[in-house]
Amino acid sequence: MKFSLFLTAGSLAWAKPSTPKLDYNRAPPNLSTLANLTIYNTWRPRAHVLPPTGQIGDPCMHYTDPKTGLFHVGYLHEGAAGATTDDLVTYRDLNPGGAPFIRAGGLNDPVAVFDGSVIPKGINGTPTLFYTSVSYLPIHWTINYTRGSETQSLAVSKDGGRNFTKLRQGPAIPAPPFALNVTAFRDPFVFQNEDLDSLLESESGTWYSVISGGVHQKGPSMFLYRQHDPEFQYWEYLGEWWHEKANTTWGDGIWAGRYGFNFEVANVFSIDEKGYNSEGETFITFGAEWQEKPVVPQVSSFRDMLWAAGNISLDNGKPKFTPSMVGKLDWGRSAYAAAGKYLPSDSKASSKSGAPDRFISYLWLTGDYYGDLKYFPTQQNWTGSLLLPRELTVGKISNVVDNELSREEGSWRVERNESGVLELATLKQVIAREPMAAFTKKTSFVEPGRNISKAGSTTFDRNPESKFYVLKSSISFPKSARDSDLKAGFQILASDKESTTIYYQFSNESIIIDRSNTSAAALTTSDIDARPEAGRLRLFDVLIDNEEKIETLDLTIVVDNAIVEVHANDRFGVATWARSWYADSTDIRFFHQGSGEVSFSNVTIYEGLADAWPERK
Amino acid sequence: MKFSLFLTAGSLAWAKPSTPKLDYNRAPPNLSTLANLTIYNTWRPRAHVLPPTGQIGDPCMHYTDPKTGLFHVGYLHEGAAGATTDDLVTYRDLNPGGAPFIRAGGLNDPVAVFDGSVIPKGINGTPTLFYTSVSYLPIHWTINYTRGSETQSLAVSKDGGRNFTKLRQGPAIPAPPFALNVTAFRDPFVFQNEDLDSLLESESGTWYSVISGGVHQKGPSMFLYRQHDPEFQYWEYLGEWWHEKANTTWGDGIWAGRYGFNFEVANVFSIDEKGYNSEGETFITFGAEWQEKPVVPQVSSFRDMLWAAGNISLDNGKPKFTPSMVGKLDWGRSAYAAAGKYLPSDSKASSKSGAPDRFISYLWLTGDYYGDLKYFPTQQNWTGSLLLPRELTVGKISNVVDNELSREEGSWRVERNESGVLELATLKQVIAREPMAAFTKKTSFVEPGRNISKAGSTTFDRNPESKFYVLKSSISFPKSARDSDLKAGFQILASDKESTTIYYQFSNESIIIDRSNTSAAALTTSDIDARPEAGRLRLFDVLIDNEEKIETLDLTIVVDNAIVEVHANDRFGVATWARSWYADSTDIRFFHQGSGEVSFSNVTIYEGLADAWPERK
Repeated sequence: MKFSLFLTAGSLAWAKPSTPKLDYNRAPPNLSTLANLTIYNTWRPRAHVLPPTGQIGDPCMHYTDPKTGLFHVGYLHEGAAGATTDDLVTYRDLNPGGAPFIRAGGLNDPVAVFDGSVIPKGINGTPTLFYTSVSYLPIHWTINYTRGSETQSLAVSKDGGRNFTKLRQGPAIPAPPFALNVTAFRDPFVFQNEDLDSLLESESGTWYSVISGGVHQKGPSMFLYRQHDPEFQYWEYLGEWWHEKANTTWGDGIWAGRYGFNFEVANVFSIDEKGYNSEGETFITFGAEWQEKPVVPQVSSFRDMLWAAGNISLDNGKPKFTPSMVGKLDWGRSAYAAAGKYLPSDSKASSKSGAPDRFISYLWLTGDYYGDLKYFPTQQNWTGSLLLPRELTVGKISNVVDNELSREEGSWRVERNESGVLELATLKQVIAREPMAAFTKKTSFVEPGRNISKAGSTTFDRNPESKFYVLKSSISFPKSARDSDLKAGFQILASDKESTTIYYQFSNESIIIDRSNTSAAALTTSDIDARPEAGRLRLFDVLIDNEEKIETLDLTIVVDNAIVEVHANDRFGVATWARSWYADSTDIRFFHQGSGEVSFSNVTIYEGLADAWPERK
Repeated sequence: MKFSLFLTAGSLAWAKPSTPKLDYNRAPPNLSTLANLTIYNTWRPRAHVLPPTGQIGDPCMHYTDPKTGLFHVGYLHEGAAGATTDDLVTYRDLNPGGAPFIRAGGLNDPVAVFDGSVIPKGINGTPTLFYTSVSYLPIHWTINYTRGSETQSLAVSKDGGRNFTKLRQGPAIPAPPFALNVTAFRDPFVFQNEDLDSLLESESGTWYSVISGGVHQKGPSMFLYRQHDPEFQYWEYLGEWWHEKANTTWGDGIWAGRYGFNFEVANVFSIDEKGYNSEGETFITFGAEWQEKPVVPQVSSFRDMLWAAGNISLDNGKPKFTPSMVGKLDWGRSAYAAAGKYLPSDSKASSKSGAPDRFISYLWLTGDYYGDLKYFPTQQNWTGSLLLPRELTVGKISNVVDNELSREEGSWRVERNESGVLELATLKQVIAREPMAAFTKKTSFVEPGRNISKAGSTTFDRNPESKFYVLKSSISFPKSARDSDLKAGFQILASDKESTTIYYQFSNESIIIDRSNTSAAALTTSDIDARPEAGRLRLFDVLIDNEEKIETLDLTIVVDNAIVEVHANDRFGVATWARSWYADSTDIRFFHQGSGEVSFSNVTIYEGLADAWPERK
């Protein structure tokens, strides 16, 4: 999803933010009345990727430069801008002030540059960007598609990625498939895939490109193309390798949301339990746009950021992707448009950390709810961020009891059944090891574990002094908790005036982030989003020492000022904004509601995180 | 061929030409030293189609408006401009000052508008232009093709053709066929064809479009497309329905020049002996670009304006055009880029003249030899013209002796053989009946016929007083003339200082226009082209009253100031510029050279022609 779908986003040139004095010990004024830049630092994260100022859009165009081993992280920003990293912790802007490496305004893209992806050794062996060049707006799945709005064009970099120069020619893919009334046709994602190579008898290492979109009256689609020549000039159309009927779901829709009406930002990659593996299983991360009826033009009420694993087969000579399990990559309503890339083991970052080949994905956390929160104070002078990079691998859940809970068609599948004990497979996703290591090597303190059976909240013995930390904890529930009214978790960013409550509730097997009391600013200022976040996580019945227990909930909560990322059990993520105002809203509390004893253990706080941008002043 | 292939032609806005005094009774100065507009009228034609000022390029985009019955004649000019006619004699500019009805500068055509054609009842029943939108230059068959240079776009007119508004969308045909390394891909010509309908099982009245170009290393091609939807949005690719190997010829190349390396401006139409007939025979007029080796980049030394008749068949399900005879539409080296259109019998012009359905074609007569004559004096303030409209029909030549002459693979074919007497078929082309009628209803005088057997020139008893006239004559040759050194014809635009000699010579069966003594201006001014013109015309042996005779040469010579069109035997044309200077260079002389008696008869001069632009001041 791009902001510029509806308007060409102007944005401030980068300016050194001044730091006006604001009294965070008193109630906030209406922040929209303040001077420019006044609240620049108020909610700004420290460890996340975002440009110095202005709006960030979809992450995209990542790659590892084969010459330097640096990983390039890209994102839409006045075109597209980016940064390099040698450790996935600290980043260096590619251009001064975070200026873009490609801008709209060429013959192919007079209106906008949308997402693309990079072939590290592309045309003449140089990094080659394949991106959506935009000629007409608006574009939206609810309205007629203007032919030629989105084409796929090439650009190359010969200066280490600081600039991608558009080829002096028309688009490499100048149109959607013949006479197809598409809802969208964008976000070309290049990848290599041995399954496709062997099914299609392609030369080994052939590049493919998946383009996201859909067909009016029919439903969302992914259009598959194959590299045709060594210069990546032509891409052979292989058909809609994945199409779903409009507004349908995986299973009953509970575990993976809806497929909606239009796909976006599809990423295709091969992974195994360790990391990226070209012979591994094919996964796709993708966005789905939808609405409840009646459909209102130019509005996407809902966007789901999904993942799928599946099998590739031939159907009448054309490759088909058939999902075997589908889930949500992140449940945050502002978290969308994930963009990942193969990060080789010989990259700078992986060499230092000893990591194997990986697939690393960054989600976008929109700062103004996809542009809907029009009154969010511009005095912040930046909008949105990326989330922390995640390692995506094939996950296994062992010793699972064979019952209705494990047999449901959910975001997992039964991989093995040994004497009635199941091993489930799912997508494993964790914060990349390097930032996690950097954050957790900081000063930490342990909050003593405890069992709580009474409703209420209990402030920690010791609280962080800042709003920059990682909170880890395990929470165990009794078997009686299943289907009960039990809720348990933490309140964070808490003071007597504010708190954000993160809890698991059994009634609908969900992790909730209650933001109704998150921010005093929401009382004075428009469009400080206070809606709750919710994500579904099944805690399976597992056998531990031959005893059936409810799986322990393992929480990792990253608080990076106003960004809160909640990760659970290596297979769940929900991220959002929690824009607390008061300086002393740093308390953490145990939270319990309903009936049943809950055991909190391994409660550890790692404070400080890391400065992702040491070179920015 | 478009001037703008290499440069975006700027041109003067139209200005009322002043008429400075020039003394045409004295030798000319160097005309390039004079003031602007000084020689505007010197060589300007009266009865031909050209814009008020500036450069004219390819004719194109003609159509009959179904609402008005007016025939619209279009041509490239600051984009494309045009005029309407209700009689094919007089024309009215569509816009004041001859301003264009479409200009370059849109998203699809930032650089140039190239040739197109019009569906009279197109999108929503309105005239719809399908044209080549240009994004990159240069384009030439000798150099690498920049992808996306030429796309095919749509524009519609709702104001009687004064403006064609581009659709707010990308091109209808956004690219050449997949991964084809084309030499060109332009000049979409829309047509209907019952043979194609029945072969392809199309709906009756389906529109087709032929796009001209070629493939590098392979040769010239015509790409065929079929209308896919009622709104003409999509065009289904049907293959290269006609492809020739690079630099090959029809027969031995004598009668139809070379196919060259690249086709341009292909027009496809169906005709019979009377006129346009959708069930008639399929003919194509087309341009061919070539050079002698070694090939020099960005130069087309030669352009041939050809026609072909042929059969349409299916080859592996794809339509193929197989020529049965090929010839030259005009032999003038400056005559090229013919553009024709079906003119229905119920058009204004045809209603008045009683003409049946016709196919009418206009050739372009470049004024500066395709831009090569860079020093031609800009003081003229206009460059180039169209030739007079021609009616193209299937021609028959009867009572032809069955011998080597008639059996050669030439620009004719043997249609019937009755007891050893042949009827040949060829393309019949004559100046359209209306202008011819208008020209010949003027004051005429007859020069007495005579037999001449002595070399030399004999001035007419009476000469025209102007340089605006039609000269008709029949010339008969004895059987002994065959293969002799005999030459016979006329000198025109003659005085004691200048003359242009038009003659038939048997040595190579050609009509020659000798311009070596045409213009005194050529002695003072650069780039007044004095090269001879030559075109091949076979005078067959025919049986007249059972006697074998050489076919009579029937000449129609139109002199419209500096434009000379020589038409012969309803199947031959050669047009050129003859830029005489002196006011008294109006004599006509019989011309004879070599041995043999020549009989001149029916020598008639119709002086005055007609003012094609009565409304221009």
